[in-house]
Amino acid sequence: MNYEIKKYRMADVTITVWKADKTRLANQEVTIAQTKHKFLFGAAAFDLVPLANSEYKGEKKVQAEQRAEKLTALFNAATLPFYWARFEPQRGQPMTERVKNAAKWCVDHHMLVKGHPLCWHTLTADWLLSMTTSEILQAQTTRIKRDVSNFRGLIDIWDVVNEAVIMPIFDKCDNGITRLCNEMGRINTIKAMFDAVRVENPSAILLLNDFDVSPAYDILVEGCLKAGIKIDLIGIQSHMHQGYWGVEKTLKILDHFARFNLPIHFTETTLVSGHLMPPEIVDLNDYQIAEWSTTPEGEERQAREVLQHYQTLFAHPLVESVTWWDLSDGGWLNAPAGLIRKDGSSKPAYEELLKLVKGEWWIAPTKLTTDGNGKIQFSGFLGEYELTYAGEQKSFSIAKENAESIMIEV
Amino acid sequence: MNYEIKKYRMADVTITVWKADKTRLANQEVTIAQTKHKFLFGAAAFDLVPLANSEYKGEKKVQAEQRAEKLTALFNAATLPFYWARFEPQRGQPMTERVKNAAKWCVDHHMLVKGHPLCWHTLTADWLLSMTTSEILQAQTTRIKRDVSNFRGLIDIWDVVNEAVIMPIFDKCDNGITRLCNEMGRINTIKAMFDAVRVENPSAILLLNDFDVSPAYDILVEGCLKAGIKIDLIGIQSHMHQGYWGVEKTLKILDHFARFNLPIHFTETTLVSGHLMPPEIVDLNDYQIAEWSTTPEGEERQAREVLQHYQTLFAHPLVESVTWWDLSDGGWLNAPAGLIRKDGSSKPAYEELLKLVKGEWWIAPTKLTTDGNGKIQFSGFLGEYELTYAGEQKSFSIAKENAESIMIEV
Repeated sequence: MNYEIKKYRMADVTITVWKADKTRLANQEVTIAQTKHKFLFGAAAFDLVPLANSEYKGEKKVQAEQRAEKLTALFNAATLPFYWARFEPQRGQPMTERVKNAAKWCVDHHMLVKGHPLCWHTLTADWLLSMTTSEILQAQTTRIKRDVSNFRGLIDIWDVVNEAVIMPIFDKCDNGITRLCNEMGRINTIKAMFDAVRVENPSAILLLNDFDVSPAYDILVEGCLKAGIKIDLIGIQSHMHQGYWGVEKTLKILDHFARFNLPIHFTETTLVSGHLMPPEIVDLNDYQIAEWSTTPEGEERQAREVLQHYQTLFAHPLVESVTWWDLSDGGWLNAPAGLIRKDGSSKPAYEELLKLVKGEWWIAPTKLTTDGNGKIQFSGFLGEYELTYAGEQKSFSIAKENAESIMIEV
Repeated sequence: MNYEIKKYRMADVTITVWKADKTRLANQEVTIAQTKHKFLFGAAAFDLVPLANSEYKGEKKVQAEQRAEKLTALFNAATLPFYWARFEPQRGQPMTERVKNAAKWCVDHHMLVKGHPLCWHTLTADWLLSMTTSEILQAQTTRIKRDVSNFRGLIDIWDVVNEAVIMPIFDKCDNGITRLCNEMGRINTIKAMFDAVRVENPSAILLLNDFDVSPAYDILVEGCLKAGIKIDLIGIQSHMHQGYWGVEKTLKILDHFARFNLPIHFTETTLVSGHLMPPEIVDLNDYQIAEWSTTPEGEERQAREVLQHYQTLFAHPLVESVTWWDLSDGGWLNAPAGLIRKDGSSKPAYEELLKLVKGEWWIAPTKLTTDGNGKIQFSGFLGEYELTYAGEQKSFSIAKENAESIMIEV
């Protein structure tokens, strides 16, 4: 195993097992088993909204449930959609309950939920267009406060501002948020949105998120931090429809952001299993084709690249999360960017990633015998575990801080 | 004439001419003549260093003097070199006196002098390489304080930090300034350098200067301003070895920087009069060829583009200066980027620019007759003027603020 993965993602664990009578459980067989990763393996799970609201019927319902099983088998985090245009198409009628049901579904299935995004120029509400910029600011911060408040406890991690680098100069279509950002400037806009979230959920974990990985973005992060904006996490998109970045570019980008010493989330990761999008396309949204098929060669390449990408990121000490964008084919751009085909079958990338996340990087149920002092020792991945003794299960966490002195009473 | 040029660069002037006996000079012919532009038409004038230090001999001296004549005939501002590697190749032995002589030459010839640059990763002192980053910071700020102090009064406008966007990630060669900026971050580095200048010359006019005209640079400016760094002027390079930007791109760039409402200097402008540099070259310095000739077609194109570029910039209210980079061919990259050929003859671009700057945009000596109240009225370009009456000359300035109520005693 990669040296960095061992160093940053694992710990040498010493557990002392105690009995209820305060003596040590000496020379007994126990079983330990990992139940969850600390690292967030996430997926965009927009599909959960209709599923959790019982909107699928018949065969579609069965397929959606199968996809959901594959989702929970591999992932421990989900991104749910808060695109304003869709979340509140009619002003004053947000689809709070629908998304809340999806968020509850995730929590019930032990998945951390992130909301995406609270402020973005694309897919923002059309009805901002008739407003002045000060009214837009008011509407945008009110929306943020409402949704953050409504979801507090269910969603405590947010992509607050999405794609601020291009936001004030986005020229594909007129929209209220570009107008606002152009007038206020990027840093003032970001500050206003972060402030609005903090008011309602002071301990929420807040991300700035961008597809721009040029110096423009890391300079923006630096400017925001200097301006006193508390960015908890740096969100980096890696939509690689035009080809895998490769390890070198990935590490170079990580290097540019690592200097802030903030945790990094790879928030939106895509690798296609069909032909690549032509390199001359600048805005990925400009490439819309009727049929974009997954192919056997493409699936092999995708599997290889997925493994390489996850291995690179899992080995970097500052990366805390990788989110796969679109679990199934046919999502954004109708691209073959899923880990699952349209027919619901798993691609090699899904199978290989599962072998990593729940295989090579996972402590399967393992029998160990305590020594005369009731101690067991092993190397484990950071996360949640269960120890079983005499049919009873006790849960514990492995963190870097506690690994050498975990106490369990059975 | 362009509406904006008339609006932003000219004023409707009313002058009341008084006699020494405090009565008005009624119904008399006077001559008014512009002597200087307020707008800064500048040139990189590194050639003045050897000239002003009498280092040229014989034919070379004659040629240098001819170039200097062409310089002063067209320009009212000069950029002098402070590249650390050349200014202080041996630590502790700066060429202060040599550059001071050039600066004095400029002042004697009524040219404003700008120093370029105080902090840059390229051409920085080699001897920084053996230092720790805190020693580099110390050396760099000490250098700035020394030079700013030594030149105070002669040079009160500085390109303080050059090319900060790329500074911390510049990977062509190891150098002390990249190391420093990488460790401190761009904004902290810029702040340290600006602070160092302000200590020695609080009223100096300070520029941030960059060739990067992408959002990265305007985001950096925003971050610096938010961090409280007082940038007086935004410096934008426009080295167009790979082809003229055109009006649309130029205006778009201006638009991105105009939102700060700070004056803008086009600090380094180049258009070649030979073949264009191939578009695939990313770092212009990578294109080094033995011979890069000026051609008749190239000279025609250059003249056309120079006019268009200067007209675009002179018409923009925030632009206060355009500096031509390399008056003569054979300078940076040995490019045919001069307004003067290697043999000292003027290219069409020089002649055409002269016709603009000292023709279309210039008030040549003009006879006017005062009315019964001693008043004359005309439209003039902002700048310095002389009024001649009865063989005596009086100077006056035209600014937007005073144009309608200038008083002159003859």
